[in-house]
Amino acid sequence: MFFQEIMRIIRYPAKTEWKQIAERPHMDVSQLNATVCQVLAEVKAHGDEAVKRYEKLFDHADLELLAVSEAEMNEAEALVSEELKEALVLAHRNIARFHEAQQFTGTKIETAKGVCCWQKSVAIEKVGLYIPGGTAPLFSTVLMLATPAKIAGCKEIVLCTPPNREGKVNPAILVAARIAGVGKIFKTGGVQAIGAMAYGTESVPKVYKIFGPGNQYVMAAKQQVALYDVAIDMPAGPSEVCVIADESCNPEYVAADLLSQAEHGVDSQVILITTDAGMLQKVQEALSSQLETLPRKDIAAKTLENSKLILVANTQEAIDLSNVYAPEHLIIATSDYKDLTDKVVNAGSVFLGNFACESAGDYASGTNHTLPTHGYALAYNGVNLDSYIRKVTFQHLTADGVRSIGKAVVCMAENELLEAHANAMRLRMKDVL
Amino acid sequence: MFFQEIMRIIRYPAKTEWKQIAERPHMDVSQLNATVCQVLAEVKAHGDEAVKRYEKLFDHADLELLAVSEAEMNEAEALVSEELKEALVLAHRNIARFHEAQQFTGTKIETAKGVCCWQKSVAIEKVGLYIPGGTAPLFSTVLMLATPAKIAGCKEIVLCTPPNREGKVNPAILVAARIAGVGKIFKTGGVQAIGAMAYGTESVPKVYKIFGPGNQYVMAAKQQVALYDVAIDMPAGPSEVCVIADESCNPEYVAADLLSQAEHGVDSQVILITTDAGMLQKVQEALSSQLETLPRKDIAAKTLENSKLILVANTQEAIDLSNVYAPEHLIIATSDYKDLTDKVVNAGSVFLGNFACESAGDYASGTNHTLPTHGYALAYNGVNLDSYIRKVTFQHLTADGVRSIGKAVVCMAENELLEAHANAMRLRMKDVL
Repeated sequence: MFFQEIMRIIRYPAKTEWKQIAERPHMDVSQLNATVCQVLAEVKAHGDEAVKRYEKLFDHADLELLAVSEAEMNEAEALVSEELKEALVLAHRNIARFHEAQQFTGTKIETAKGVCCWQKSVAIEKVGLYIPGGTAPLFSTVLMLATPAKIAGCKEIVLCTPPNREGKVNPAILVAARIAGVGKIFKTGGVQAIGAMAYGTESVPKVYKIFGPGNQYVMAAKQQVALYDVAIDMPAGPSEVCVIADESCNPEYVAADLLSQAEHGVDSQVILITTDAGMLQKVQEALSSQLETLPRKDIAAKTLENSKLILVANTQEAIDLSNVYAPEHLIIATSDYKDLTDKVVNAGSVFLGNFACESAGDYASGTNHTLPTHGYALAYNGVNLDSYIRKVTFQHLTADGVRSIGKAVVCMAENELLEAHANAMRLRMKDVL
Repeated sequence: MFFQEIMRIIRYPAKTEWKQIAERPHMDVSQLNATVCQVLAEVKAHGDEAVKRYEKLFDHADLELLAVSEAEMNEAEALVSEELKEALVLAHRNIARFHEAQQFTGTKIETAKGVCCWQKSVAIEKVGLYIPGGTAPLFSTVLMLATPAKIAGCKEIVLCTPPNREGKVNPAILVAARIAGVGKIFKTGGVQAIGAMAYGTESVPKVYKIFGPGNQYVMAAKQQVALYDVAIDMPAGPSEVCVIADESCNPEYVAADLLSQAEHGVDSQVILITTDAGMLQKVQEALSSQLETLPRKDIAAKTLENSKLILVANTQEAIDLSNVYAPEHLIIATSDYKDLTDKVVNAGSVFLGNFACESAGDYASGTNHTLPTHGYALAYNGVNLDSYIRKVTFQHLTADGVRSIGKAVVCMAENELLEAHANAMRLRMKDVL
């Protein structure tokens, strides 16, 4: 039994142990800061020239132009199969449907006689989307980030993604961008891409908010530019899933879901919480056999070494433990998933029942897959339409409004020792009394 | 004419000059980082003992207990005038009305046959509110931060505010906290307060998100803890107002509104954009005479030295320039304010007409006064009910759902070279076909 030896099984942990179970490995990217700050400073000072220099150094691409041309877009169309295009269109449609339903319309509230206040949704004018390169081209993330940006009404949507050594961008990324309606695509990755969008260069427009995943350097760069120059979607960390299973679950499904997280990278977090002792064995057997056929078997096997299979007394304990862990993805596959739904407090995205596998939401159900990892679900939610707008508040007062709240405003201002604040209201009160 | 010499008037600036007009002084708190990191590390390592040590050092307060006692709460009640209590109750009621109307209820969306997705609002369980001390006790900020926290349903609301040399907290802050329903109040300020809430100590519970204004040290501390440990409301900077006025405006009102921003601190930003050349002179005269009576005259006069009075051709130009500036507070006092409302793109909170002075919203109209400064309104909104919740996504698939999107999921996963993702869906497809 290969797995019984390398996977950590925790049986009936005491509540006092939960915090430790929920702990993630410490992530500290500050040791990258020297490099990151240098690249950012160069991009800020030298614009396109610096971006191209780093593209040569880091991506081994010799670029004349950073912008992807219309010809390259058309070339990409020809390279992508009809089957994948259809899949992208279907996924885009569902993502659009879910995010369109998130449109916000504020209502006017008369908080006191003559005092009318409301919120209005206004799109962020310029947003930047970062799509990593590497072995697995994340074209699905293009749909996840660009679709809500278009629905929100962002005027300028900039996408940066690294080129390969031939100076080309993965064609599926370009086709996904076209389907989602992104016009400005630039061949640059890593820290230099984040810098280009944060500061603007001759080619790359400056944006006000940067979205998207990336490696530790990208993460550190986003943190740096977020200090003063631009907003970011959320802090990032390795991807993770928590599955809650009872005796009714299909162990093959459970194993497949754990593996689909485990294959992401060796730092991925995979947790199974089950109320059924038998499930521990069955899932491990399924993992063992499924693992054999995976191309990314080495990565997945390594991740499983850090995974935890936890046996608890009942589903209430399972959901309580999950809330302490605050997983990015939570699959509740138990037969009582409906009862547990209302008990979810801390999670990024929740998958209910036996058919809602994580990959449904990763690609095509319509929910966003850019989610808070590393316990950030305690305070953050995933990307949604709100991420691309601001709710600006408005207020209007009539003479009655001044009469309703004037005295309170003056009294509070005086007590905060802000006499000019009091005076601004006093002048109005004098005129309406 | 005292003011004509010290206030900067800009007549009909070209659009190419707007960016420069909109620029704020560079804020860089990184030179404080050594001190900030040291205090944070001590608080993390030594908890209450370190917090008390820094309270002695920085606030000259010798504290036995950090928590404010019930006796101190009652003592505060006796010290606050009935008039102020009534004002606080009225302000709290309006703030509650406006933020209650922001409750979010997600609707279930069937994005494809058998695929059901929705968002659910879940309160952040533990939030921390920071209220600065100093000369002007910001009890109004207690209402602004605690009222939506209660409405959202945050289970634990922690408030930290520095004590005076006698170890006492300003009574109006305590009364405001009681009105807003905050139970846990701790006598600590500055970096040590931020550290206490970010890490938790023996007395102060760890929270997941920290809200509230503060000086440069507090700002730097919030930035530091936001890197890994806790979310924060937004980046902070000096307060600012932009007033748009035409010939219909009352120059006394305009001057009073500019001064109520100018008295905040010498780094405050004050801008008047007007379409009426006569207004420049009239407002300056009003400023000059109103300034004479202000207790914080020196601060306000110093701020006005950095202020800008800008003459533009028409209100369209005025609103366009304001959108480039992205002010925290925008007062549109022109007669055509209704037409301009829809043209607001970048602002924190907008005040319409002649009676909606900024101090209305600072205290009692119901809108929140914790707003994005320093141009952050380009990407951030002010604190609102959303700031205290997360929108968690849920999804449920039936067998039909697997049939609807299964093929697309498998195709996309295969093309992203994530075979285990494909496999998780393939297993379900096999069983429902």
